[in-house]
Amino acid sequence: MGEKREVKLFGMWASPFSLRVEWALKLKGIDYEYINEKDIPYKKSQELLHFNPITKKIPVLVHHGKPLPESTVIVEYIDEAWPNGFRILPLDPFERAQARFWARFADEKFLPIIFNVYTKTGEELKKAAKELQEALKNLEKALDGKKFFGGETLGYLDIIVGWIPYWLRVIEELTGAIIIDDETLPLMNAWFDNFLAVEIIKNTLPPKDEFYEFSRGRREEFMSGQLTLD
Amino acid sequence: MGEKREVKLFGMWASPFSLRVEWALKLKGIDYEYINEKDIPYKKSQELLHFNPITKKIPVLVHHGKPLPESTVIVEYIDEAWPNGFRILPLDPFERAQARFWARFADEKFLPIIFNVYTKTGEELKKAAKELQEALKNLEKALDGKKFFGGETLGYLDIIVGWIPYWLRVIEELTGAIIIDDETLPLMNAWFDNFLAVEIIKNTLPPKDEFYEFSRGRREEFMSGQLTLD
Repeated sequence: MGEKREVKLFGMWASPFSLRVEWALKLKGIDYEYINEKDIPYKKSQELLHFNPITKKIPVLVHHGKPLPESTVIVEYIDEAWPNGFRILPLDPFERAQARFWARFADEKFLPIIFNVYTKTGEELKKAAKELQEALKNLEKALDGKKFFGGETLGYLDIIVGWIPYWLRVIEELTGAIIIDDETLPLMNAWFDNFLAVEIIKNTLPPKDEFYEFSRGRREEFMSGQLTLD
Repeated sequence: MGEKREVKLFGMWASPFSLRVEWALKLKGIDYEYINEKDIPYKKSQELLHFNPITKKIPVLVHHGKPLPESTVIVEYIDEAWPNGFRILPLDPFERAQARFWARFADEKFLPIIFNVYTKTGEELKKAAKELQEALKNLEKALDGKKFFGGETLGYLDIIVGWIPYWLRVIEELTGAIIIDDETLPLMNAWFDNFLAVEIIKNTLPPKDEFYEFSRGRREEFMSGQLTLD
């Protein structure tokens, strides 16, 4: 579906946000050209700055020459611009709204807490880990005994929070913190496994060793203050 | 359209977020029961906590007994659950996505900056005012010579950023800062006037004197640290 030159994605191989868009494109079966902005945030291509002068961030989807930034917005756009085939958002207005609510809640809540778990040590790490567990218990309510947030198959919320399993397990390795296990978060833990077992998801994740090394290096840059969240 | 008991809105008279939902309901011509949580954030009703145990915030829309939090999500829901009559989001997928992008950008960008303009003094106020002008210049691009962000009539983005004109003019009065004028932000300034002149908008704004006094009081609470943003 779609010729390659019709759809371009400016992403970054280790970014959870560009991964969301890749998953959505692959679930829909849309061909795309991927431009890996691998030196972000230190170096950005002129093309990226041209297509996204407002936030200057990846991901940016360029469809027939028209650029669209912001992963959550792009994923919804993909569902609406290619309405056939795999459905990302449910059809029912209330269910759609719930998926959007949890997605926004997760972005507001998890990004800062997971960043703290990633970059803190000692007591601060313990505190952040506990806070993250509490937040995940809230998110777990949206699973409500289902296999995926979307029900029997993946949906919008799975795509939006889908970076958490892979990232968090690497962060657990890096920091020694244990956030997720069967006892404290059984539904979430099962979802981690279910999600990571989906072929399209698994095949689009960054290679483990490279990603681990990258995350270790970035962690040091954040901890030393060389790099900051903007 | 709709019986009153079908639609309940938990809001707060001086909250820009519950106003978004009121505007959307009124533009659609939907009858609703309004529950004014006037002592927020100091006191919240048991009913609000029951309907929104996750974020515990207003606004919450309760439709046929089913609760939905988060103003941006509720406004989209209203457009989808009552698809006839006034259209909030455009029909074209790319235009919808652009409206969502700017709405998200505005929420992430303007809330913290406007809060700084509201609560800072001296050099910090000057710096925040300048930052706000720069951000508004970005948002102005989405107006692009149009009367409203939605084009000839109000749309999603107008509803989401529509609190800014009224709030900002009161904040200018309170702080003495001048943010918006015809010289620095001509399109935005014209939109402020156009937006505030729409009957439904004007008639739903909080009464000026009461709102001014309320804003003055809250400002002192924030400046003394008695109240903090959560």
